[in-house]
Amino acid sequence: MKYQITFLPSNTITRAPEGTTIFNAANWAGLAIDSTCGGRGTCGKCKVRVTEGNAPIREADRKFLSPTELNDGWRLSCRAVLHSDCVVEIPRLMGNPKAALLGYGHHVILNPNVAKIYLELSEPNLEDQVSDLARVHAALDKEGYDVHSNISLWRALPNILRDNNFQVTAVVVGNELIALEPGDTRAKNYGIAVDIGTTSVVCAIVNLNTGAVEAVKSDLNRQAPFGADVISRVSHTMLEQDGLAQLQARIVETLNDLLTQLTAQSGIARENIYEGVFVGNATMLHLLLGIDPEPISVAPFIPAIAQPITFRAADIGLQMHPEARISTLPHLGAYVGADIVAGILATGLTRNKDAKLRLLIDVGTNGEIVLGSVNGTLSTAAPAGPAFEGAQIKNGMRASDGAIEGVKITEQGEVILQIIGGDVAPIGIAGSGLVDGVAEMYRAGVVDASGRMIRVEDARGKLPDALVERLVTIDGVRAFRLSDAESNIVLTQQDIRALQFAKGSIAAGVEVLMQQMGVTANDLHEVLLAGSFGSYINPASARTIGLVPWVAVEKIVAVGNSAGEGAKIALLSFREREAANRIPEFIEYVELSGRAEFNDIFMEVLAFPKLTADDRQPTEFYVLPSAVHSL
Amino acid sequence: MKYQITFLPSNTITRAPEGTTIFNAANWAGLAIDSTCGGRGTCGKCKVRVTEGNAPIREADRKFLSPTELNDGWRLSCRAVLHSDCVVEIPRLMGNPKAALLGYGHHVILNPNVAKIYLELSEPNLEDQVSDLARVHAALDKEGYDVHSNISLWRALPNILRDNNFQVTAVVVGNELIALEPGDTRAKNYGIAVDIGTTSVVCAIVNLNTGAVEAVKSDLNRQAPFGADVISRVSHTMLEQDGLAQLQARIVETLNDLLTQLTAQSGIARENIYEGVFVGNATMLHLLLGIDPEPISVAPFIPAIAQPITFRAADIGLQMHPEARISTLPHLGAYVGADIVAGILATGLTRNKDAKLRLLIDVGTNGEIVLGSVNGTLSTAAPAGPAFEGAQIKNGMRASDGAIEGVKITEQGEVILQIIGGDVAPIGIAGSGLVDGVAEMYRAGVVDASGRMIRVEDARGKLPDALVERLVTIDGVRAFRLSDAESNIVLTQQDIRALQFAKGSIAAGVEVLMQQMGVTANDLHEVLLAGSFGSYINPASARTIGLVPWVAVEKIVAVGNSAGEGAKIALLSFREREAANRIPEFIEYVELSGRAEFNDIFMEVLAFPKLTADDRQPTEFYVLPSAVHSL
Repeated sequence: MKYQITFLPSNTITRAPEGTTIFNAANWAGLAIDSTCGGRGTCGKCKVRVTEGNAPIREADRKFLSPTELNDGWRLSCRAVLHSDCVVEIPRLMGNPKAALLGYGHHVILNPNVAKIYLELSEPNLEDQVSDLARVHAALDKEGYDVHSNISLWRALPNILRDNNFQVTAVVVGNELIALEPGDTRAKNYGIAVDIGTTSVVCAIVNLNTGAVEAVKSDLNRQAPFGADVISRVSHTMLEQDGLAQLQARIVETLNDLLTQLTAQSGIARENIYEGVFVGNATMLHLLLGIDPEPISVAPFIPAIAQPITFRAADIGLQMHPEARISTLPHLGAYVGADIVAGILATGLTRNKDAKLRLLIDVGTNGEIVLGSVNGTLSTAAPAGPAFEGAQIKNGMRASDGAIEGVKITEQGEVILQIIGGDVAPIGIAGSGLVDGVAEMYRAGVVDASGRMIRVEDARGKLPDALVERLVTIDGVRAFRLSDAESNIVLTQQDIRALQFAKGSIAAGVEVLMQQMGVTANDLHEVLLAGSFGSYINPASARTIGLVPWVAVEKIVAVGNSAGEGAKIALLSFREREAANRIPEFIEYVELSGRAEFNDIFMEVLAFPKLTADDRQPTEFYVLPSAVHSL
Repeated sequence: MKYQITFLPSNTITRAPEGTTIFNAANWAGLAIDSTCGGRGTCGKCKVRVTEGNAPIREADRKFLSPTELNDGWRLSCRAVLHSDCVVEIPRLMGNPKAALLGYGHHVILNPNVAKIYLELSEPNLEDQVSDLARVHAALDKEGYDVHSNISLWRALPNILRDNNFQVTAVVVGNELIALEPGDTRAKNYGIAVDIGTTSVVCAIVNLNTGAVEAVKSDLNRQAPFGADVISRVSHTMLEQDGLAQLQARIVETLNDLLTQLTAQSGIARENIYEGVFVGNATMLHLLLGIDPEPISVAPFIPAIAQPITFRAADIGLQMHPEARISTLPHLGAYVGADIVAGILATGLTRNKDAKLRLLIDVGTNGEIVLGSVNGTLSTAAPAGPAFEGAQIKNGMRASDGAIEGVKITEQGEVILQIIGGDVAPIGIAGSGLVDGVAEMYRAGVVDASGRMIRVEDARGKLPDALVERLVTIDGVRAFRLSDAESNIVLTQQDIRALQFAKGSIAAGVEVLMQQMGVTANDLHEVLLAGSFGSYINPASARTIGLVPWVAVEKIVAVGNSAGEGAKIALLSFREREAANRIPEFIEYVELSGRAEFNDIFMEVLAFPKLTADDRQPTEFYVLPSAVHSL
């Protein structure tokens, strides 16, 4: 059972399962709530006002809040648990140093790369003929900023100073003085965190003074008509004369449109957005910059740029402040990109002091895999193909209204569907429904360990009649009807084979890394499923089909849009950004196409693992362990 | 008597007086000749081949050159003295470190800010998946270059490497990797040294490998139609809506046209010009960048930028390499600009180890004055008005064909004229002719110390009849006819007053600096006259009218286009550029408009100084002490 939380004043709406704390839900939604204890109920700083919905008063609330506050709906958000839809007001962050809980439970001190410094300069006279630029530099120097500037600032300089009695706000990004603004504009200081996915693009406008996400939105990447995956996008640049320029124009258009919507919605001026941190896979970031991605796509798979870079938003036509700077995070390799580095940052995989071994998998057309701890980390990319995204699956579709996202088969042979959008007729199967459906068919004996679907004649008497009825043949291929006969949504033998190839590739990639590190599933402290798809997979089912190694179900954790979360962290803290930029130094990238053993392992893991007693336990529909970002 | 020297292979033509060494003539023309002794005849490296003209063999020639070489016309250029027009071949500079004699006798080690590094990179493979950018960076790092790059390089990167088997030449300007070029292009490495004057613009293409000036040309600043001096240019920006944009477009057009001519003439591709060092007064450099110069023109006279800056040529539309960088030298104040800093660099005024006191004057609409030595330096600007440029003088004109540039009055009262273009009828008076004419009239008694012209009735019997005949009245104003009656070129009483105001302002500026420093004319080791006008003034006459302090005539030295020379030095040596950039730290800028004593001193120095026995010596027509750059 999920509830809807509406956060004010940003009007961010998130769905989260019963039992989630408001603090966690806000965190997953990218909204910062003041806190110094990190959500342990001990600092009393994380109070929010629940204006609609049910939030019982807890002991900690009485300790930190006055009776009047309690009456007015104030609660400590880390103690307030969801039992209904609700509307929650989050106060602005106060005090300094400011911190926000971001990512996978990380407490990030706000330390943005953008600084706004209000200057009241002495006016020049015949005894003080210091030039305008030197005057500004000297004042900034006093505040600890040693800056460069460029022609756009120089051109504005004499008039902006004289029109404002030499009272201006300097906007410094890194060590670049990008603008002087009339008067004191320190309150208006924003950046954007952007995750450019092959399928969808997420953009969040973040208040750099408070850490609050002021507006966030995702949209389809408008490159999609040129191919669903990176390979077809690259092909387009190779086959069409101006294909690269076309694709670049499309992603810039996507971003500018998102900026238009977000600024309209939030009332924030484009001119007050001074920086962006962008993540995405190597191909997406190459296309964004108009760099030929072809060498990424053919052996030996070389990106033009893997290191973090900074450029002017205007260089690629992004409509922010004209001198806004965009920084990217580094790529680990041609197919483990900055989005994964951001995920590593958000999950702390390479830095957690517990030194425990974690496996991070971002499941998609490519399965990006990271295995490690503070003691050492490996990463690779496994080509999973499009099955998880619903392509090449007979009734496959994107995770949108009408898609089956969960499947449960009872002992009586009843098939219960979880459908996006609730009580509607199903129109197809999303990736998570595919995983769940096949896992349930395997548990129910409709499919055997080799992935072969049972014949009707073998099923009779062995399986409940209700299941046998669902075994059909379509164009000579065996299939299993998930829906009622009217909707007629089926999973075919071919669909199961496609899923086996996809999960087999990822499982083989994981196995290669585990072998190289000399560890087994028993050594894994957590398996983190990332990405908008990975987060929605039922962990038990993922384990049942062998997509992830066999670990206790509680160890399989959805981490939401960890890429976007990492981008936000890097935007809000320059120190965290520097840490992210150094992540490649601590990670060994393993190129699977150079590995002889990969194919052997792949063949071994194509089958489903032997069912354990634990796997045979009746399962529940999957609810996210904490509120995963609604995007 | 001047001779014409044609230097090959650059085909640079210079006129220089009899007795000038070829080495000095080349130096003034901005052409580098190999030398380690600095022109003392001791290193034997400065050999050139005289293919036409008369160059007697000297002792030093026999010491360093073989009989065959002597037969073929080879001579040591520092010993070869002009006695006829000649054609001289200069060999390319060889060896490393390379040096060129530039500026006022300075020996500059070639150490340009542009480096071209040929890279033979290892090609990537599955065992070496380093990104293109990191591969290039690593190779440059090995060579000692730690560089940044930007989007234009990133876009070119994957294809330039793969199209050229990973064999490319890196072009590094400062710490910016601005380009990768196919194969080995190290031989093509050029920069430009540019002096943007209010009246004319000089641009030289310099070979950064050899120090040779490959082509040089001056052109009128196309802003001229908007006003002859900086004040009228600034007025234009204030009065016209798009006046600033207009003026910027005009100077960029002037420069691009010079580049078109110079590249055509030299056969050098624009794309191989990677850097420029630009000097000029503050207003000119502000207009170049499109920065409002208004605050420079009104008290308290504040430039937007006085410090050295670097920008992309493309930022202002200059047609060089698309990523070429332009650097400026610093200004000392609103009216003592980067051109003067360049002059200080070229003359070594603040750095000469002799620690002797020198006075540098750039005579023009503004007289820029620098007084000092390595022990301390003052500078100021004195508003001289347009008299020296021929404006507001009845028969004034620019220094071009037909202009009187020198005047001599014999004891018999004969007036002998030196006319530009030789044996032609005079059509007007250039600034140097004005100074020379008035000085001669003062010596001859036609004008008294107060500047008053003698009345005809007083002159009769006192002055030779030949002079009395020349005393005329025009529109009720006394005048002196310089030419024959037919040409009728006169100097009027008003002209003399205009000259007195002009020279008085400069003399007062000099006096303010000398008083502030506590020195007198006796302490001056040299008086350096700079600029295309200053260099042509007859030193004896400048002294006679009191434009410069009274020192021995030999101490008054023309230093040619020291601004352009300084720009060249800064282009060829990054160390010299850094030294130039620090010059303002060692110089105190004195703002005359804040000085109460200036007006008093000005009134005192309006009159001509008392004539000494030395002043009364018959003078010769002035010939430049060394070959002054023909531009």
